[in-house]
Amino acid sequence: MMMDIVILGTGNLAHHLFDAFMTAKEVSIIQVVGRSQQGLEYFKRYVDVTCDYNAITEADIYIIAVKDDSIGQVSQHLSSLQGLVVHTSGAKDMDAIVSYDKGVFYPLQTFTQGRPVDFKEIPICVEAENQESLKQLKKLASTISQHVQEINSDQRKKLHLAAVFANNFTNYLYGVGENLCVSEGLSFDMLKPLIRETAEKVQSLTPFLAQTGPAKRGDQKSMQAHLDLLTKEDHKKLYIQLSESIQKVYEKEL
Amino acid sequence: MMMDIVILGTGNLAHHLFDAFMTAKEVSIIQVVGRSQQGLEYFKRYVDVTCDYNAITEADIYIIAVKDDSIGQVSQHLSSLQGLVVHTSGAKDMDAIVSYDKGVFYPLQTFTQGRPVDFKEIPICVEAENQESLKQLKKLASTISQHVQEINSDQRKKLHLAAVFANNFTNYLYGVGENLCVSEGLSFDMLKPLIRETAEKVQSLTPFLAQTGPAKRGDQKSMQAHLDLLTKEDHKKLYIQLSESIQKVYEKEL
Repeated sequence: MMMDIVILGTGNLAHHLFDAFMTAKEVSIIQVVGRSQQGLEYFKRYVDVTCDYNAITEADIYIIAVKDDSIGQVSQHLSSLQGLVVHTSGAKDMDAIVSYDKGVFYPLQTFTQGRPVDFKEIPICVEAENQESLKQLKKLASTISQHVQEINSDQRKKLHLAAVFANNFTNYLYGVGENLCVSEGLSFDMLKPLIRETAEKVQSLTPFLAQTGPAKRGDQKSMQAHLDLLTKEDHKKLYIQLSESIQKVYEKEL
Repeated sequence: MMMDIVILGTGNLAHHLFDAFMTAKEVSIIQVVGRSQQGLEYFKRYVDVTCDYNAITEADIYIIAVKDDSIGQVSQHLSSLQGLVVHTSGAKDMDAIVSYDKGVFYPLQTFTQGRPVDFKEIPICVEAENQESLKQLKKLASTISQHVQEINSDQRKKLHLAAVFANNFTNYLYGVGENLCVSEGLSFDMLKPLIRETAEKVQSLTPFLAQTGPAKRGDQKSMQAHLDLLTKEDHKKLYIQLSESIQKVYEKEL
C-alpha cells in the first residue's frame, strides 16, 4: 500500500530526503511545507507546496526536517491531524513532538548541499511510541535504506555524539592538516589520498587495529620533535591530549 | 633505460613498494635485503634476496624501507657502493643516510599488511643532494605514481606531522566513536558510511567549508548535553579541547 508523506522543512536534509523518497515506488510525497516560498522553489516543480501551516494536507506520515529547536513549534501545527509525526534529529527526545502519534526517523549521515548520497547505505534509526507506528516507520525507511534499525532515544543520543567525534572532530583534524600543509607552501591535495585510505581502512579493520603512529608506539622522541614543529598553541594542546589518550589505550601492549 | 633497484627492509612499506615496482616496466628489482630469511620468504619467489649485508648487489638506487632509527645503521652497509641511497621516512633528515649520494623517497600514505593500495594516487615526495640524483628519483617515482613532488626536509617533516593529524588522530577519534556505539549495544558498522562520507567530502570541499556540528554553530546547549553523556575523562577532555578549537575558527562568523 502506498504511503503518503509530507515533508516539513526546506534545508539540506529535507532536500536529500525528498530526492530519495521521490525514487521510492511505495512512497508518495504529497506536500512540502516551508516557511518561505523561496525555500520551496526546488520542490514546487514536482509536488504541492505551502507556506501556510493551516493548509497542511492529510497524510500517513509527517517528517519534520527542521532545526532541533524548531521541532516543538512545527509539530504544534500538526496536532490536529491524524498521521504519524516524526522528527529527524539525533539529539532530541521523541517527546520534542507535541502530537499524539509520534516517532523518530534519524538518518545517520552528514548531508551537504549538492552532494548526492547513497541512501541505501545510510543507517536509518527509527523509534516510535507504539508498535503499529514503529512498523510503519520501518516500512517507510526500508523504501530508501537497507540499514533500518530500531533504537531508543538514549541510544540515538549516544550515536549522535559518536557521530560528532567521527565527523565534526575528524573534519577539524583534516583542517589542522591542511593548515600545516599550507604553512609550508604545500597543497592540501597531498593529504587527500591518506584521508581517504584512513576512512577506508576502518571499513574492514577496527580502529584499534588500524592505529599507527608515534603515540601508539610510545615513541617519545618523535612526539617531542612534532611538538617542536607546531607553532599554534591549540594544535600543541590537541597533539598532547590526543597522544596521551592513544598512549593510554596501547600502553599495556608496549 | 632500465633502473636497477635494491630494496632494504621487509616490512609493510617494503612489501608495498615491491609490489608496485614489480609492475613498473622501467624498473627492475634486482635484490631485497633483510635481517632474517623469514622476512624474505615472500620476496624470494620473485627476486634475489640476502640477509648478508656484505653481499648487496650493485644497483642504480637503494631504497631503505626500515624503521627510522635503523636508517643510519643500514645505510652504513651501502657506503662503499656506487648507487644513489634513499630512505623512505617522513620524519628523518636526508643526512640520516651516511652514504655519499643520498636522497629521500617518501610516499605519503598509510600502508596496511594485506591491503593493496593504488600507488598511482599516492603523493611521492622526493629530495636529493644533487640535481642528477633528483632527476633520477623523480623518474623512479613516476613509474608508480602520478603525483611526484620535490620537497625539502623541513616541508617533509611538516607534511608528516600533518599526516599524524589526518591519519593517526583521526583514527583515534573513530575509536572513540566505536567505543560510544559499543557502550550502547550498537555496532560500529553504523558509523562507517558517515566516516567514509566525511573523508569523501573534503576531496572536493575544504575542511573549513565542510565543518558542521554544535561547536561550529556555537550551540552551547548541545555541547553541554554531549559532555553530560560522556563518561570517560579522556573523552570529555578531548570534546572540550576540540570544541574550543573549532569555536575559535568560526567565532568570527557567528
